[in-house]
Amino acid sequence: MKLEFKVKKEDKETKARLGEIIYNGKIYETPMFMPVGTEATVKTLSPEEVKEAKSGIILSNTYHLWLRPGEEVINHAGGLHKFMNYDGPILTDSGGFQVFSLAKPKDISEEGVKFKNHLNGDHLFLTPEKSIEIQNKLDSDIAMSFDECPPASASYDYLKASIERTLRWAKRGKEAHNNPNQMLFGIVQGGPHEDLRKFSALETVKIGFDGYSIGGVANDHESKEDMYKAFDYSTTYLPKEKLRYAMGIGEPIDIIEGVIRGVDLFDCVSPTRLARHGHALTKLGKLNIKNSQYKEDFTPLSKECDCYTCKNYSKAYIRHLINAKETFGARLLSIHNIRFLIHLTEELREAIKEETLLNYKEEFIKNYYGEPNEK
Amino acid sequence: MKLEFKVKKEDKETKARLGEIIYNGKIYETPMFMPVGTEATVKTLSPEEVKEAKSGIILSNTYHLWLRPGEEVINHAGGLHKFMNYDGPILTDSGGFQVFSLAKPKDISEEGVKFKNHLNGDHLFLTPEKSIEIQNKLDSDIAMSFDECPPASASYDYLKASIERTLRWAKRGKEAHNNPNQMLFGIVQGGPHEDLRKFSALETVKIGFDGYSIGGVANDHESKEDMYKAFDYSTTYLPKEKLRYAMGIGEPIDIIEGVIRGVDLFDCVSPTRLARHGHALTKLGKLNIKNSQYKEDFTPLSKECDCYTCKNYSKAYIRHLINAKETFGARLLSIHNIRFLIHLTEELREAIKEETLLNYKEEFIKNYYGEPNEK
Repeated sequence: MKLEFKVKKEDKETKARLGEIIYNGKIYETPMFMPVGTEATVKTLSPEEVKEAKSGIILSNTYHLWLRPGEEVINHAGGLHKFMNYDGPILTDSGGFQVFSLAKPKDISEEGVKFKNHLNGDHLFLTPEKSIEIQNKLDSDIAMSFDECPPASASYDYLKASIERTLRWAKRGKEAHNNPNQMLFGIVQGGPHEDLRKFSALETVKIGFDGYSIGGVANDHESKEDMYKAFDYSTTYLPKEKLRYAMGIGEPIDIIEGVIRGVDLFDCVSPTRLARHGHALTKLGKLNIKNSQYKEDFTPLSKECDCYTCKNYSKAYIRHLINAKETFGARLLSIHNIRFLIHLTEELREAIKEETLLNYKEEFIKNYYGEPNEK
Repeated sequence: MKLEFKVKKEDKETKARLGEIIYNGKIYETPMFMPVGTEATVKTLSPEEVKEAKSGIILSNTYHLWLRPGEEVINHAGGLHKFMNYDGPILTDSGGFQVFSLAKPKDISEEGVKFKNHLNGDHLFLTPEKSIEIQNKLDSDIAMSFDECPPASASYDYLKASIERTLRWAKRGKEAHNNPNQMLFGIVQGGPHEDLRKFSALETVKIGFDGYSIGGVANDHESKEDMYKAFDYSTTYLPKEKLRYAMGIGEPIDIIEGVIRGVDLFDCVSPTRLARHGHALTKLGKLNIKNSQYKEDFTPLSKECDCYTCKNYSKAYIRHLINAKETFGARLLSIHNIRFLIHLTEELREAIKEETLLNYKEEFIKNYYGEPNEK
């Protein structure tokens, strides 16, 4: 039961599209925000809570699951869905991003990447074939090709050579892929350079994948301008009928700008990470629940929000839990923050239907960034 | 709507009793195990999860809530029930135990106890009146008198003088009590000494309370023998028609021995604390989920258990979560451990009904301690 995707409507003013994912008899609409469950759990949440937030696809990390508990354990459990008790679609990344960011490899060769396990220092070797083999065993619904993730500071020449190698790796991964129920995505790189993004996109499409990811956009060192250009330069050369996924993007404005540029899928750890630090996403910007102004604020995080947290708990209670380092506080904020981003994509879909997307963006920015609640 | 209590049946072979608590139109049976929500949250759990485990009364800590967020905040929220979103009965302790264990006071006088706030070192003063005033404001359903909690090593003479002061404090607390919806319990002390327990029980009953607690039994330095004697010596002199509560008791065998000696209520942080350390309670003893034998064990913690965790997750998954320090792991184990102790009390109630309590105890011990799963 491989996932299917259909574009239902294209926006007239922008490159935005409305789509449908059909999975296991259920329909999930795009654009979509995908919560991240790094270790086969969306931090602090149960699968039921993830679904109650109206999640569709969730993401899990190949690198982490390879190291712990190991892909064999999950395979023997009957795959990731059974292991973690989630019956919605699951996307896995290739492990590439973590190898390059967490493990800091010394040795990148044509064959693959040698690096140290960040948990215990063991020497490990990840190749395009190995990444696909692990993902096949995890039995996720969407797998990613193994790509090099060069730093934002990489030179034009380095990027060009890196893209060429990533293309060779993409071919090897596609050949190694052996799970008929699993989609395989190619990844477009190229930094902020139009010609490199174009080259990467066209060549990746030539190999032929079930969908396409836009990599190298979540890097802190990049400007927003560059990020949005990278969206644009990539989607322009991608086939309309296939899913497009901007990796690691979760800032509300970046999701909006991505949607406008024709991106369908987004993921980020930000809603759960912000939650652990006591931050709540609201239409009026981020609020820091630890601020003393909320000590006796018995209203919900947001009056319009339909999440479990906002229906049952006050800012004062959540503030108390976060101050007392009670994990139920991070859980309540995670539920809310995930629901906030998913609700944002619901509104974006509505705006595409109503052909009011650019107005929606303007209104959102005015509320969210206009009078910043805090810096 | 003050809580009501009725004894429904007395065991013939033992001092055990079956009782009913009527609260807010609902009936809760005793003997009962009460989960602890120190900071106005049962660690890692939602109120719905606490109720799904068939909890009745839950406990919260006056000392912690007084220091953070402060009883005024909770009072302004409309009381503890509204603040934490729990509509079942709530019991608060007096703060005495924490003042004597966490804060380690230097100065115990007739007036009260001077000690340092364990969070910030501030000098604080807790008196019997203040403890009751805080509990009145928290608006719990059962409040405790403020008592001195002498160490297990205290001499007979110290204990005797301490009991006399605790009796004077109990009177002052009763006079200060000003919440018609709240029960107030007196506390029996006296260590392992029959005459002191008898004196403490009879004199506390003379003052007259809605129920009686047995204090000084959860101390690590005491032998099990002494604990069970203390249950016995105390309940012998307590009125049959009133609730009896053994403070801080949560080891399965201690609950069973307490029930046999006529105790109705038990509480302990153990199910959630054990969970955080990766331990699960089962009929065959405690299991340490981190053990490598569970790496590919795809069966539930217990096949007979009806909890959410056992219905949906494997030992292998929970082991992975605990190893990865994911809070969902502690949550799954907390759900199971709380349900285990509540289920134990359900079986004890059934055994009282069937008049098979001593057989039940024997059987339980054989399974739980007979072939220890681990040391």
